[in-house]
Amino acid sequence: MNGLHNGYLCGMSKPLILVSNDDGITSRGIRFLVDIMKKMGEVVVVAPDRPQSGMGHAITIGETLRLEEEDLIDDVKAYKCSGTPADCVKLAKHYILDNRRPDLVVSGINHGANTSISILYSGTMSAALEAAIEGMPAIGFSLCDYSSDADFTHIEKFVESIAKQVLNKGLPKGVALNVNFPPKRNEAIKGIKICRQARAKWQEEFDQRIDPNGRRYFWMAGNFVNFDKGEDNDEWAIANNFVSVVPCIFDLTAHHAISILNDEWDIVGE
Amino acid sequence: MNGLHNGYLCGMSKPLILVSNDDGITSRGIRFLVDIMKKMGEVVVVAPDRPQSGMGHAITIGETLRLEEEDLIDDVKAYKCSGTPADCVKLAKHYILDNRRPDLVVSGINHGANTSISILYSGTMSAALEAAIEGMPAIGFSLCDYSSDADFTHIEKFVESIAKQVLNKGLPKGVALNVNFPPKRNEAIKGIKICRQARAKWQEEFDQRIDPNGRRYFWMAGNFVNFDKGEDNDEWAIANNFVSVVPCIFDLTAHHAISILNDEWDIVGE
Repeated sequence: MNGLHNGYLCGMSKPLILVSNDDGITSRGIRFLVDIMKKMGEVVVVAPDRPQSGMGHAITIGETLRLEEEDLIDDVKAYKCSGTPADCVKLAKHYILDNRRPDLVVSGINHGANTSISILYSGTMSAALEAAIEGMPAIGFSLCDYSSDADFTHIEKFVESIAKQVLNKGLPKGVALNVNFPPKRNEAIKGIKICRQARAKWQEEFDQRIDPNGRRYFWMAGNFVNFDKGEDNDEWAIANNFVSVVPCIFDLTAHHAISILNDEWDIVGE
Repeated sequence: MNGLHNGYLCGMSKPLILVSNDDGITSRGIRFLVDIMKKMGEVVVVAPDRPQSGMGHAITIGETLRLEEEDLIDDVKAYKCSGTPADCVKLAKHYILDNRRPDLVVSGINHGANTSISILYSGTMSAALEAAIEGMPAIGFSLCDYSSDADFTHIEKFVESIAKQVLNKGLPKGVALNVNFPPKRNEAIKGIKICRQARAKWQEEFDQRIDPNGRRYFWMAGNFVNFDKGEDNDEWAIANNFVSVVPCIFDLTAHHAISILNDEWDIVGE
């Protein structure tokens, strides 16, 4: 247990597992995740009532939230929420679970990649990071396949293995996991790589059109551009048929830059 | 210029300054910021057409975006956008500026604090981080005063000083600044502190109510709880009447945790 904390201690009561996502409660990915988690503990689902991709770490302030019970899968308590993935985790903790503390929070399985910089835009990962802020072990799972009939079967044993390891060993304080899976290929997945976030970005293009009333509007589109030449990052792992596991923080301080600014700046500010 | 890069070189043409925010184009804070930036360079404003607080790093995918020219202040080009703060920066770069590269991107001045963990929920800072992803020097400014008639006059010289230093000296690669100002107090601001993000969180409470149709709804409310006992963080700086400057990254990798997971985990995954 060196360096790890907050692990679920085996031999005690059934662990409580909170499941959320950003594709919405009706997505195939969350149902697949619930089926795996049911084998490991008591599952409660709180997920958005509609797709919330690209919501980043948005929360609902200044507007009301709705929450309704939903029939998801036999014997699993499930709720749909009108808010964002981060709202779902907050509502789950403070209202639905009545301050019972989940032993694990899992989000996904997202339909599409959340590697590299996409973590910032990802609702899947904001649910996981929100749980980590609350001190709960948390994992966001994403399958790098955007197709609606994506095959999830090849990743089942990895989802189970990673969730079990986090339940048993915990995670370092203030860390959540961003887990991405390669799409189903002819070759089997080679294993798991612990990675850093690749240096990459989205290169947007805006498709300008005119609506039937003669007014201009835009669609955001774009390509993912990977600048990273390393082999220790999540983009490399997925391209080479490994599962990528990036440990993530919510302290955004550029600690290395503090001394640089102190050296260079006139900090009296006049 | 040790450790710094991408600074605007004095003596060349007038710098191009992009201004955005999350309170919307009609807010007092953005007008105050534009007035200061006009003294330093050519200003272009692209800001949301309505308040977008709490939007985090959300982007608009799967929905259309509107963009319209707006009369903001004499001789400043200004556009209002139906999207999020991150959308505004993307649209500005790829469409409005026609790939002219801003020498500085500033966001704010936010009406309310964006210290500590609030950076994750902050639309103000997502505009700055979006610019940093694009390699532009970027600053998010927030005044720790939520009142609609908040006084901005005491921070003017600090906004100007910080923006000038970033224009002249640049910022370390991949770093944006999260700048928060104390509210107007009897005592003058003491100066600028380069800080880390304080260890704190929002402790939510959900106010449950019944609508006129008998259906349940919730308001999210809550208190900010500061656990941090240090004196090197942004919460301490604001409480002690300093301007806090936190250098921020968009690489969320918990680099220290990579070796821990490699040591502890069965990474074959079976």
